[in-house]
Amino acid sequence: MRVLVIGANGQVGKYVIDKLNDSGHEPVAMVRDTDQVPQFEDKGIRSVIGDLEKDFESAFYNIEAVIFAAGSGPHTGADKTILIDQEGAIRAIERAKHFGIKRFVMLSSMAADRPESGAEAMKHYLYAKHRADEYLKQSGLDYTIVRPGRLTNDRGNGKIKIQEHINSYGEIPREDVAETLSFLISGAKAENKAYDLLSGDQRIHEALAN
Amino acid sequence: MRVLVIGANGQVGKYVIDKLNDSGHEPVAMVRDTDQVPQFEDKGIRSVIGDLEKDFESAFYNIEAVIFAAGSGPHTGADKTILIDQEGAIRAIERAKHFGIKRFVMLSSMAADRPESGAEAMKHYLYAKHRADEYLKQSGLDYTIVRPGRLTNDRGNGKIKIQEHINSYGEIPREDVAETLSFLISGAKAENKAYDLLSGDQRIHEALAN
Repeated sequence: MRVLVIGANGQVGKYVIDKLNDSGHEPVAMVRDTDQVPQFEDKGIRSVIGDLEKDFESAFYNIEAVIFAAGSGPHTGADKTILIDQEGAIRAIERAKHFGIKRFVMLSSMAADRPESGAEAMKHYLYAKHRADEYLKQSGLDYTIVRPGRLTNDRGNGKIKIQEHINSYGEIPREDVAETLSFLISGAKAENKAYDLLSGDQRIHEALAN
Repeated sequence: MRVLVIGANGQVGKYVIDKLNDSGHEPVAMVRDTDQVPQFEDKGIRSVIGDLEKDFESAFYNIEAVIFAAGSGPHTGADKTILIDQEGAIRAIERAKHFGIKRFVMLSSMAADRPESGAEAMKHYLYAKHRADEYLKQSGLDYTIVRPGRLTNDRGNGKIKIQEHINSYGEIPREDVAETLSFLISGAKAENKAYDLLSGDQRIHEALAN
């Protein structure tokens, strides 16, 4: 499947590109700057230039599915949380609808479904993610929302715990999040569902087979 | 009509309380701190304590209409723009629905209906207002959204220009905005409409009679 990865230059996004590529999909890396292109082209992966705050419509041509893995990150202000995490996601959903793209997988965050429960410093972020997730749910697209716990740079071991609600907080390597997102692109079972995601003891394809 | 004014201690909110009172309504001032209460009680106006970021459900008992005039203001960060201007408004809309309150008048901002057109420094604010306005439109409540231009502290002259879209930017005294919001509470004509608002040459009741 030809999958547009929005935020392909991000820490999770880079893994998503590789995991899609390894599993026989055809990823298309959406990046903001031309100097982010060679790392993908060197691997034979197509890239498109698109800026979530401006125009990125051309990125959607000939795309069959979208993985949204972009985020403004911890080094910018909350204004960018609105403009990228919330509004960038909402515009990506609108574009996907416009182009008739059926499948949309959203990288969200644990507690985005109950932002009022978050730590004070995180609340604005969780609400922004919440609004984007709610917009996706009501979009009519076939969606999957994945809300991982704290992301680490540990090497993935391919073992996860994924449930509609997990009542404890925890962490998970970015690589395992990326593999889960990539797996969900082709899975029929996960349509119109939202999941919490942590490291666990089931292999990804087993966890998602249930 | 018993009208809950959310943000009653704000610069527009204070005028709204007075205008409602003058026109025979029964305003209820929702304020965050107890030391904001006496200014209203001294005039015989009922007040309720409610914090938009926490709990304000008790403010809605026995209320017939809501005017949302709260804002985080220019002295706090964009995190508060999300938590107050956007999420505070959305929670107020949810509470109004929950309590079966029919009428909801929203103080928005010019360009909130086309946030992408705003100045770079204003965009995050306009998107936050936009999301709140969109939420209201889809809430099923009888709403009026008022999007004034730049607010001034000039004395109001009671003359406005109000249209669904005004193509030029301009300003308007807070007092005239407040009188317009107050007038709209009882007007039958303005249900489920959104308006741009500037100073103009029609008296408020004439402008809204058309």
